[in-house]
Amino acid sequence: MTDQIKIFCPATIANISCGFDVLGVALDSVGDEMVVRKVSEKGIRITKLIGQDLPMETEKNVAGVAGLALLAASDHDGGFEIEIYKKIKAGSGIGSSAASSTGAVWAMNELLDRPFSKVDLVKFAMEGERLASGVAHADNVAPALFGGFTLVRSYDPLDVIPIPSPSELYATVIHPQIEVKTSDSRSILRTKITLAQGIKQWGNVGGLVAGLFTSDYDLIGRSLVDHIVEPIRSILIPGFHDVKSDAIKAGALGCGISGSGPSIFAFGKGVDTAQKVAQSMKEVYKNIGIAYDVHVSKVNIEGIRRI
Amino acid sequence: MTDQIKIFCPATIANISCGFDVLGVALDSVGDEMVVRKVSEKGIRITKLIGQDLPMETEKNVAGVAGLALLAASDHDGGFEIEIYKKIKAGSGIGSSAASSTGAVWAMNELLDRPFSKVDLVKFAMEGERLASGVAHADNVAPALFGGFTLVRSYDPLDVIPIPSPSELYATVIHPQIEVKTSDSRSILRTKITLAQGIKQWGNVGGLVAGLFTSDYDLIGRSLVDHIVEPIRSILIPGFHDVKSDAIKAGALGCGISGSGPSIFAFGKGVDTAQKVAQSMKEVYKNIGIAYDVHVSKVNIEGIRRI
Repeated sequence: MTDQIKIFCPATIANISCGFDVLGVALDSVGDEMVVRKVSEKGIRITKLIGQDLPMETEKNVAGVAGLALLAASDHDGGFEIEIYKKIKAGSGIGSSAASSTGAVWAMNELLDRPFSKVDLVKFAMEGERLASGVAHADNVAPALFGGFTLVRSYDPLDVIPIPSPSELYATVIHPQIEVKTSDSRSILRTKITLAQGIKQWGNVGGLVAGLFTSDYDLIGRSLVDHIVEPIRSILIPGFHDVKSDAIKAGALGCGISGSGPSIFAFGKGVDTAQKVAQSMKEVYKNIGIAYDVHVSKVNIEGIRRI
Repeated sequence: MTDQIKIFCPATIANISCGFDVLGVALDSVGDEMVVRKVSEKGIRITKLIGQDLPMETEKNVAGVAGLALLAASDHDGGFEIEIYKKIKAGSGIGSSAASSTGAVWAMNELLDRPFSKVDLVKFAMEGERLASGVAHADNVAPALFGGFTLVRSYDPLDVIPIPSPSELYATVIHPQIEVKTSDSRSILRTKITLAQGIKQWGNVGGLVAGLFTSDYDLIGRSLVDHIVEPIRSILIPGFHDVKSDAIKAGALGCGISGSGPSIFAFGKGVDTAQKVAQSMKEVYKNIGIAYDVHVSKVNIEGIRRI
């Protein structure tokens, strides 16, 4: 039995337009790497953390906290050491904390010979999300663990539904280097919406899920609409409306805020379109004078994997 | 070319739990019959109306009004005569007006050699719904015309998405003989909901659509939840909560208000379960002393048909 594995932990887009708090998707070309080792010493230790300035104390690190949740539920007598090679920037809105927390528990589960289900792993990883944002949400950890698109239908009980991804669907993500705190981004949301807004939103969620099942790219595009959250949160992201309109002009099926921002995602059919969309997004931030990272990625249909 | 056709116009369930205002489904064992004749005389005449006490003047009849909308858009020089044999009770909440208005326009389109698309026909039939309830909604006319489950993703522009139905899915519908006016049923709804309620609702819509695509009966059942409308509208339907809990005990996947009531629907896997659910529903109204009709039906996957 292997006592150490090296893994790729994908970045993820949550809140996919109409799918606020329920829909997420895993990416393929951007993610962290981790090395997890089973050791006889009890507890979890973060032994390396390269690439981002994040706490290494187990109790303050999302991978540590998620790992402790798994350890508490397992009958493993020893512990684990974790090396984290961050490629996803913290605070970018593409599931940086989820990549670390899911990577830790996925790898530990492999090293223990899979005593836990994927849904169990989602629950453990959600403890990392609670540490990161104050809310134990699952919309990034679910796609990181299941791959592809996932719907978190319910939290009580936790119900994660995998949704298929059309083979030519690509995501383009631009991360403008500004800071938007998840807590700020959440506090500006209204706690009430109109019934009419709700009806439009769940009509679009139904349309998006149907479009993903039938590989109907046009329907996916028509459904990528958010009447509720985007109009408010986009205020915090300079250039958002130009990025969106230019992405659509460049051929994107739809465009919205990734997670709670500041990253902006678009979906497109085929890699060429996704590259054109990336170019159009870059131009906007070049003109405004804000630094950025851009990722063009196929949908990652397997989630976390060994490397 | 035939100048007359006889058709079956299915009853429909709208608002399917979480799918308020967007999801509907067509039934197979209950519906109206109509005979529609192409004539040289201009305009629309309702020449027979058997089974229900409804107005026969064209402008006051939903089939007449829907027919006029089609006629105005067509280049047909003559008119149509319509005979309506109502089997669906008006005000029952299973799409009585939608059956008449869709039947009229579907048959006229056939007799004119199909100049109009199904979406066009939905639009014409919606004029009948406007007459019946004051709101030109599509959640009954869409499934009557398309068959199976339909999602009305958007009204502007009108976007109707057919959703597949698992082969063993049956509906049980009970119609307690009490009057609930659609206008009353609509006026008691709150115009605002919480964001948290909305998130649960669109999570369930996503789950229901996914369950229908994958024939996952359990997922369909888990998703048939309505946190928003049912708690309010069910107040107008005596016995609702007993009917629902007994239906679930009898094996129903889920249970809710059909349209704006007073009919109550349940879905079940297989005809035997659907029959048991029907029995359990009947018992409730026998005990309360309210007369009722019960329908057990496969999902009608083709919609309106010639007979």
